[in-house]
Formats: sequence, C-alpha cells, structure tokens
Amino acid sequence: MDDAAGLAIAYEETKKSYEEGGIPSKITTTSFRNIETATLQNAGRLPAPTYSSSTIYTTLSPCDMCTGAILLYKIPRVVIGENRTFKPENGGGEDYLRERGVEVVVVDDEGCRGLMERFVREKPGVWWEDICE
Amino acid sequence: MDDAAGLAIAYEETKKSYEEGGIPSKITTTSFRNIETATLQNAGRLPAPTYSSSTIYTTLSPCDMCTGAILLYKIPRVVIGENRTFKPENGGGEDYLRERGVEVVVVDDEGCRGLMERFVREKPGVWWEDICE
Ligand SMILES: [Ca+2]
Ligand SMILES: [Ca+2]
Ligand SMILES: [Zn+2]
Ligand SMILES: [Zn+2]
Repeated sequence: MDDAAGLAIAYEETKKSYEEGGIPSKITTTSFRNIETATLQNAGRLPAPTYSSSTIYTTLSPCDMCTGAILLYKIPRVVIGENRTFKPENGGGEDYLRERGVEVVVVDDEGCRGLMERFVREKPGVWWEDICE
Repeated sequence: MDDAAGLAIAYEETKKSYEEGGIPSKITTTSFRNIETATLQNAGRLPAPTYSSSTIYTTLSPCDMCTGAILLYKIPRVVIGENRTFKPENGGGEDYLRERGVEVVVVDDEGCRGLMERFVREKPGVWWEDICE
C-alpha cells in the first residue's frame, strides 16, 4: 500500500466519525483506538515483526498518547495527513518520534486539513478541551 | 491518600491479575487500562483539572504508551513501585516524564519487586515479548 492509499483510508474513517456527529474527542480516541485496538491488538496479538515493519497513517499529528503507542510497538514509520490544526508542543508528538528514530512524513493533505479545520470551527471548546490543552 | 496507600492499591490489583493466571501483558495492559479507561475515562469524562491535580500509582516503571497517556492528561506526579524489572531504555518512560516536567517518585518497594521478579522468572518469554523489547 502506498502512502496516498493509506492516508485515504485514515481520512475516510475520520470523515465517517465526523458525519456520525463525532466530536474531536471521538476522533482522537478513534485514532488512538485504531492504533491500540484495531491495528495493534486485533486477532489476538500480531507478532512483533508485523508492527516493526508497518507504516501507520493518521489524519492528525499524533498526540502524546498515540506517540507512546507507536513507540511501544516499535512502528518505524508514521504518515501524517496534516499538522496545522494540532501539534503537541514542548517537543512531544512528531518531534519526539523523530528523536526516537521513527521516520515521520507530513503530507500536508488538503482534504485532512479541511476536515480538521471544520471541526475546530464548529466545536472549538470541545476541540481544545479534548486535546487537553 | 498518601503514597503508601496509593501504591498498596496498585500492588493489590497487579497481584490479583497474577493470581488469575494473568500474564505480564495483562498487567501492562491493565496498568494502561487503569490509566486510560478507569482513571481517565470513567464517569464520562472527568474535568481536566481532576487529572492535572492527580497522582498516578503504578507497580512498574511506565512503558512508552503509559508515559504518553500520563502526558496527554497532564498528570503531574507518578509514584512507581519499582523500576528494576522493567525500565524503557533510550530515554523513554520515567526519564522522559521528568524531562517533560512530571514529578516521578520511585519507591523501590520490596513487594512490587518480588511480584515482578516472579513473573519474569515464571514466564520470561512472554514477559519480554510483551514489553516489546
Ligand atoms: Ca499535548
Ligand atoms: Ca520500550
Ligand atoms: Zn492520540
Ligand atoms: Zn504501559
């Protein structure tokens, strides 16, 4: 799977969550659940080499918790849709992933950006509370 | 609640998981679930100030994912039972928490250490696979 295809799946999942009336928390959580539950824990547990040769696709720049999950499972590569609407400060998130040797690709995808900007515009309070800022 | 009382609860939960035939993964997961699900997400969602004035108690030194959850929820203080059987390397875990301004107390509690050493001794393969090393 190439990066465009991987990111398109992440975008569709986020969009679906939005259309179901999802608030940003759902998306952050979904994004985390994707990492933790779906990608990492389905089918019992995949063998470690599966993770350590995977790329993870996310519409948003990873929060501190997703960052930790990526590190725990030794996922070597992260493709991020956009990092303008959210990016952890003080060196966390993608900066810390790079520091720990993970390859981070920021696509700055227009579709992801549009969707995230719509969230922030429609529910700014929830958004900011959700990402704990 | 003082630190001894908090750590005693963490110890009892870990011990119970062990007695139910729990493997270390259960414990790491339980420890994470405690942070994520029980402590952080029960009762809908607690207001942010609840987390930001909390202490979290853990029998083991936190893995990268628990570290990320602690940072995301801005928990300012972590009390760790022992860090001899497990401590993430390359600057993750408790070192990174300190770097990000979290107060970290390592009790080096004999009870926690004994329990963890028993796990490692009884199921070394599962243990190491579990913590993704
Ligand atoms: Ca943050
Ligand atoms: Ca580790
Ligand atoms: Zn996240
Ligand atoms: Zn953990």
